Amino acid sequence: MDLLHNLNLDDVLRELAASYPERTAIVDGDIRLTYRELEVRVDRVARALSENVASGGRVLWLGQNSFRLLELLFACARLDAVLVPANWRMSAPELTYVCDDTVPSVVVWQKEALGEKIAEVRAGTSVSALWLRHDDPGGRLGSYEALVSSTAKAIPQRLVDPANPVLAMYTAAFEGRPKAALLSHAGLIAQNVAVALVQGIDHDYVYLNSGPLFHVATFMTTLSTAHMGGTNVFCPRSEPEELLRLIDAERCTGAFLLPPTMDRMIELNKDGKYDIQCLRSIPYKQAWNEMVSVYDTPWTRKPGGYGQTELCGLATATAIGGDSLGKSGRPSPLARIRIVDPDGHEVPSGETGEIVVRGPMAMVGYHADAEATEHRQRDGWHHTGDLGRREEDGSLTFVGPMATLIKTGAENVYPAEVEAVLASHPLVAEVCVIGVPDPTWRQNVRAVVVATGPVEDVAAAGTELVEHCRANLASYKKPKDVVFVESLPRTGSGRIDRDAVDAAHGGGGYPGTHGGIQ
Amino acid sequence: MDLLHNLNLDDVLRELAASYPERTAIVDGDIRLTYRELEVRVDRVARALSENVASGGRVLWLGQNSFRLLELLFACARLDAVLVPANWRMSAPELTYVCDDTVPSVVVWQKEALGEKIAEVRAGTSVSALWLRHDDPGGRLGSYEALVSSTAKAIPQRLVDPANPVLAMYTAAFEGRPKAALLSHAGLIAQNVAVALVQGIDHDYVYLNSGPLFHVATFMTTLSTAHMGGTNVFCPRSEPEELLRLIDAERCTGAFLLPPTMDRMIELNKDGKYDIQCLRSIPYKQAWNEMVSVYDTPWTRKPGGYGQTELCGLATATAIGGDSLGKSGRPSPLARIRIVDPDGHEVPSGETGEIVVRGPMAMVGYHADAEATEHRQRDGWHHTGDLGRREEDGSLTFVGPMATLIKTGAENVYPAEVEAVLASHPLVAEVCVIGVPDPTWRQNVRAVVVATGPVEDVAAAGTELVEHCRANLASYKKPKDVVFVESLPRTGSGRIDRDAVDAAHGGGGYPGTHGGIQ
Repeated sequence: MDLLHNLNLDDVLRELAASYPERTAIVDGDIRLTYRELEVRVDRVARALSENVASGGRVLWLGQNSFRLLELLFACARLDAVLVPANWRMSAPELTYVCDDTVPSVVVWQKEALGEKIAEVRAGTSVSALWLRHDDPGGRLGSYEALVSSTAKAIPQRLVDPANPVLAMYTAAFEGRPKAALLSHAGLIAQNVAVALVQGIDHDYVYLNSGPLFHVATFMTTLSTAHMGGTNVFCPRSEPEELLRLIDAERCTGAFLLPPTMDRMIELNKDGKYDIQCLRSIPYKQAWNEMVSVYDTPWTRKPGGYGQTELCGLATATAIGGDSLGKSGRPSPLARIRIVDPDGHEVPSGETGEIVVRGPMAMVGYHADAEATEHRQRDGWHHTGDLGRREEDGSLTFVGPMATLIKTGAENVYPAEVEAVLASHPLVAEVCVIGVPDPTWRQNVRAVVVATGPVEDVAAAGTELVEHCRANLASYKKPKDVVFVESLPRTGSGRIDRDAVDAAHGGGGYPGTHGGIQ
Repeated sequence: MDLLHNLNLDDVLRELAASYPERTAIVDGDIRLTYRELEVRVDRVARALSENVASGGRVLWLGQNSFRLLELLFACARLDAVLVPANWRMSAPELTYVCDDTVPSVVVWQKEALGEKIAEVRAGTSVSALWLRHDDPGGRLGSYEALVSSTAKAIPQRLVDPANPVLAMYTAAFEGRPKAALLSHAGLIAQNVAVALVQGIDHDYVYLNSGPLFHVATFMTTLSTAHMGGTNVFCPRSEPEELLRLIDAERCTGAFLLPPTMDRMIELNKDGKYDIQCLRSIPYKQAWNEMVSVYDTPWTRKPGGYGQTELCGLATATAIGGDSLGKSGRPSPLARIRIVDPDGHEVPSGETGEIVVRGPMAMVGYHADAEATEHRQRDGWHHTGDLGRREEDGSLTFVGPMATLIKTGAENVYPAEVEAVLASHPLVAEVCVIGVPDPTWRQNVRAVVVATGPVEDVAAAGTELVEHCRANLASYKKPKDVVFVESLPRTGSGRIDRDAVDAAHGGGGYPGTHGGIQ
């Protein structure tokens, strides 16, 4: 372990406490902490938990947004442990699954708003852990704050390899159960700097944590703000009037805001009760632009890019590298990206393949799933399970999740790619492309389409869609036939239920055990 | 070697060629190369040199500024070799020493302006290497360009650990011979991103390479510009009219310019012959400000910071972290810094000690000097051999080189610290603080001073200076006596010759074999 040349997140915190001792790190309700004070609290938390949490152990967070989430991340960094911020919007059975899957040594939980659900989780889980309530500012026995007030003995400093995981985030479950992506110290540090570079975050940044911190994109802005010596302002829920008040009172320069919330804020602040000129915003409606400071930077002009939880968030950004043909922009300076075919060979510009990535931000692996980890990391690249394309100018386009691969003759057809082309036709409202077994070609491509209006001549409409594909795709990717339906079956989460479409329309014969999303 | 999570400089180049294929990477005289073309040339150079240059081998550059220096760095990255850009201003004996010390497999040299000197080096060195002249665009047999035109067979890709060195830079020699600091792929990549963050370098940056590339600070701006997908414009020497022409023609946004050059450029461009509004400049004289675009950023307001060759350049920047009491600002987000006493213990804020650093930018070590490397890297920190102070607000001040340590009683006194205080007194023009052997205290502190004017009462003046020190320093650091002299002896490079001052004024008895600069 070459600690001279490799810093971990605990080093970052210690340097922040040394370099920005009096700078405000955290505002959360009545609580205000400088970086020096934050480091003192982190030290107390780490000491108090050290008997319960071994190197590699997990600390599960079952709460809403709170500064204690950031504090616990740094405490876990010091203990060589892993913080798991669960999605508090999940149902009790889902959270129970997360608890059973994570096997935490410590669970830090919240009574307000979540008490009943968490009681169910606690009753249902098979895991035996230390449960600490975080929202008990009185610090009664057994609460998180009681722990912080205690004076546990100093512990021997653990040597923490920056390649070790320190944060675990559950990814969206396309199929089966969600998996926890393990993110390393080195990955988070690299991503902090990349995020700061792209989004223009510095020591002056005051970030209102109004987005859910169990999502990696939101959390990385929080962590990057801290890493640069800025200030994080927390609020448990995103309530428009409270957001206006906090932005005004704390002079916030950044926030996570969606259009419906912005509309409500415009409405509530008609009379100019709150001064939120401090907020550096992307351009929106006239009334909004007059209320805030519209910033003209590559990021505010074109926020976004391509990323996933397994990559600590964005691996490309539209703000990087200037104009681009590709809608996902160009890679982070700390990432390497390739578009590959199923055999791992790079495909030429303009062709669609799987996006694979190398760099510090790639996850260490999935928690407790060596097989999926090995599959994702084959050939020394992180395989995203997403389809993309390198454009002629070198920029990248995220095409869609790979979903099931169709094999027709020797060729690979990704349904997502064909669906994207079909969806661009005015006749098509919704579409699902499936593979149908064929004795000669192994599979044929079939499109199952919901039309935008009544279709009088089904054969002619089908031909038109097939020709549309022929004009826009390699010929072998076009559907052999088109089936028009009234609607497509959906899963509980609202996605198209591909298994049900297959069952109803003759789909099957897909290649490989790992043909689907991993 | 975890190559999934760790990129080397060859990865950076390959990604640049993929992401910015048509972007102009290089302009040098008649030569213009896109990133795709640069990568093709690098590949040819690497192939052609692969038989001569083994993993860990050195390539010595004996030339002025040229795009081939950057090209060779990337070729060395691909070959797992080390590029050594020598200071072409050195004398033939000095360059011969560098050649003998480096033991290069290949020397790439320049005939124009340096031909005679290099002939001496070639005759004097004991090293047997492949010598390739780079400035022979005709590409005659045995020239560098002939090599690039050749079509050597593809070579098996070498696995290059990013922790390996890829660049060696000779550091200033305070004592004895200069040493080559070995800088790693990981260090350069981290520094590229930190430099981009602090200096605001992006894909739009067009950097005029008008500073000497054998200095790490200049070279890091070049490399950061390349890493971000910007354009590097090269010129062999810094000639004001040519700089004006290049800035205008290539729309340069950045350049390395010193005030005398800027004055000359103002003079030459009185009639507005050249349009250099594209240049983003720090504010200077009125006439200059009207000619360029004065940028108001933390970096243009306060450029600079603390750094050294062994740290890939700046480890702190005045532009980082806002206002600061310390004149060197705050650390790079990728560095950790401590101020320590000679036993390695951190000293409190306000006290002077040695600056020690951890982070990817710390050198791998010195070339062929394991003892000095071990000494510099003791306790898992890079020891800079420089004195600094952490101020109350967490910011840092570089005090001066440690030079010789004086031991008086149990206390350590750094001459540089006492000299800085004495130099602030109006009586003092120049000063050298030495240690004088003492049977009781081991050493006493003596100040040897050149006064700003005639000193009538030597005793009173001495007392005044001692009192000035007592008011500004711990009492044990004040000189026990002050000697006034007409002038101080200097070394060939213009530094105060401490050995000569010691010899003339009774200095000696300094502690430790490593008391001096290493």
